[in-house]
Amino acid sequence: MNERLKRVGHWLEEKGADLAFIQDPSNLFYLSGFECNPHERVVGLIVLPGKEPFILCPRLEENRLKASGWPFKTVGYHDTDNPWNQLRRELEIRGVDGFRTIAVEKEQLSLARSEALADLSPAARFISVAEELERLRQIKDEQEILLLKEAAKWADYGVEKGIEALSEGVTELEVVAAIEHELKRNGIRQMSFSTMVLFAEKSGDPHGTPGTRRLREGDLVLFDLGVVWKGYCSDITRTVAFRSIREEAVRIYDTVLEAQKAALKVCRPGARMRDIDQAARDRIKSAGYGNLFPHRVGHGLGLAVHETPSIHGGNDDVLTEGMCFTVEPGIYVPGLGGVRIEDDVVITREGHERLTRFPKELQIIT
Amino acid sequence: MNERLKRVGHWLEEKGADLAFIQDPSNLFYLSGFECNPHERVVGLIVLPGKEPFILCPRLEENRLKASGWPFKTVGYHDTDNPWNQLRRELEIRGVDGFRTIAVEKEQLSLARSEALADLSPAARFISVAEELERLRQIKDEQEILLLKEAAKWADYGVEKGIEALSEGVTELEVVAAIEHELKRNGIRQMSFSTMVLFAEKSGDPHGTPGTRRLREGDLVLFDLGVVWKGYCSDITRTVAFRSIREEAVRIYDTVLEAQKAALKVCRPGARMRDIDQAARDRIKSAGYGNLFPHRVGHGLGLAVHETPSIHGGNDDVLTEGMCFTVEPGIYVPGLGGVRIEDDVVITREGHERLTRFPKELQIIT
Repeated sequence: MNERLKRVGHWLEEKGADLAFIQDPSNLFYLSGFECNPHERVVGLIVLPGKEPFILCPRLEENRLKASGWPFKTVGYHDTDNPWNQLRRELEIRGVDGFRTIAVEKEQLSLARSEALADLSPAARFISVAEELERLRQIKDEQEILLLKEAAKWADYGVEKGIEALSEGVTELEVVAAIEHELKRNGIRQMSFSTMVLFAEKSGDPHGTPGTRRLREGDLVLFDLGVVWKGYCSDITRTVAFRSIREEAVRIYDTVLEAQKAALKVCRPGARMRDIDQAARDRIKSAGYGNLFPHRVGHGLGLAVHETPSIHGGNDDVLTEGMCFTVEPGIYVPGLGGVRIEDDVVITREGHERLTRFPKELQIIT
Repeated sequence: MNERLKRVGHWLEEKGADLAFIQDPSNLFYLSGFECNPHERVVGLIVLPGKEPFILCPRLEENRLKASGWPFKTVGYHDTDNPWNQLRRELEIRGVDGFRTIAVEKEQLSLARSEALADLSPAARFISVAEELERLRQIKDEQEILLLKEAAKWADYGVEKGIEALSEGVTELEVVAAIEHELKRNGIRQMSFSTMVLFAEKSGDPHGTPGTRRLREGDLVLFDLGVVWKGYCSDITRTVAFRSIREEAVRIYDTVLEAQKAALKVCRPGARMRDIDQAARDRIKSAGYGNLFPHRVGHGLGLAVHETPSIHGGNDDVLTEGMCFTVEPGIYVPGLGGVRIEDDVVITREGHERLTRFPKELQIIT
């Protein structure tokens, strides 16, 4: 059994839980290596303390599950079967019936499915396994770091291609299309979120969406994008100027860059997460833009593009080797536009390694 | 109050329910016109029989909600607030406390949120509002049909551009990239699902994913794609041959085309859904490919790319004016490849109208 599954088994024992039912596709992939896309059908990994785990899945998916290398039992069901009856039978075979405590992903599991599980053992109590899985997932191993690096390289490439696509009169959506076209041509199947390309005043909205705004001289251009590479996500932001830049925008750019570098300097084992946020916020505040940096400085990155740890001013947790997250301060001036600079980093034994490598010095694209 | 909200209110009265809590973004948009993308934050539409509805949402989204034209109250909360307390207060103001029956989307609402709702009124019983919303949504009005037509036109355009991108040695992913590039350049922000372009033997898997397989003479090419246009989805499949086609593939193509046309002929008010499936299946069976058509003939289409009605052999329901769905028989021969032909249709007073219009006769692309 792999270490990850063993740790979930131990955790169940500690909590006195009888089983875990895990169905979030990222958690399932993390624990089993099985990449599933079940849509409305049930796929569940059942972990039992001291016993072998098994996976409940549609018969249609069973071959793919076996091909993924899953070494334990799979319990398949047809579309005409009731998967919960299959689950009940399989639990009975293993001597688990009338379980009392079941660990589930409370934030993901639907009420309908929780009712189906409760029907299997009406006295059962639900506890949440999500936090334990987050804790496991937030420390990346060597193999995961390799994949995160590869994902980051493709994000760099996306920014490069986005900059190449800039020309007078091009729209934000055309630049998005050009970036994704280049990435998909190279075998990238999926972006990690909707690619963001925002011009001028639109970059001043941290939640803006690309549209048909046309590029003009003097516009800031903000790129925020990432890819999924073998399950792992990247996330980069760069801001450039087109042909010329206003003096105030230069000042903002320099401030954000300095803030981002200051935040990166804090990133090493033992540092508090809040101090990363604080380092960036201090620089921005002392430049007079404190109220124009309305979001946390970063978020964890891995199988999900947003996962733990959350790097914000209220987080007293401490960095550990293997954590991977973004560092992305920004300043947003209504009317003028916004500047954000974002890198992905992984915490190493002595400090950190930056995964995204695209240059950060101010570029004025001609 | 709009008709849709009124109908939910009446339904709640009939069921003796005290309120509905609706949070699925498509249902919310359908009932309120508010397009939200709340990620992990709670957004809920509360419908009360005989009283005005209100929307609970993050303060960040409140302006967008008001701008969307929502005429009733919005209850905003900060990230530091507990939204469930805000909800409790607002219900108390309206004289609703200690509710006994609450209607929710059981398949979407998470266990964590259902626990938060249950905390507001521990004696409460959950019932499902999902089926009633499905029933409402499956009859499209004029405005919705216009948008579905527009979405279908862009799907046609996508196939056209995909065919233009075919050349010796191109990969499946390159063709996907070319299609999406053309659509995004034209202002399409979102595909309705991952664009599928499959060559030759890969088209023989109804769940295949595009990769780096290169196009060669004699390959079948299957396109399955759709866009989201102002919230509404399209979904088209066409299959063409590259430069030449094997005799057996011609026979398969002709069979699928005949089956699809036979299924379309059934589409009129009063016809049973199962008979659409049956019409296609009969043709395919009598051509000797009965066991190579392993899926239902179609699915409803609207704000979601898969919604009710489900058009399959076990569905005795009857078609009604305003229903919109796909008709998409296919034959999949392991090793050789697959052919599927899919149109979107809407049921009219006398029969049906086809929304996707791209030609269906066999094309051999040179």
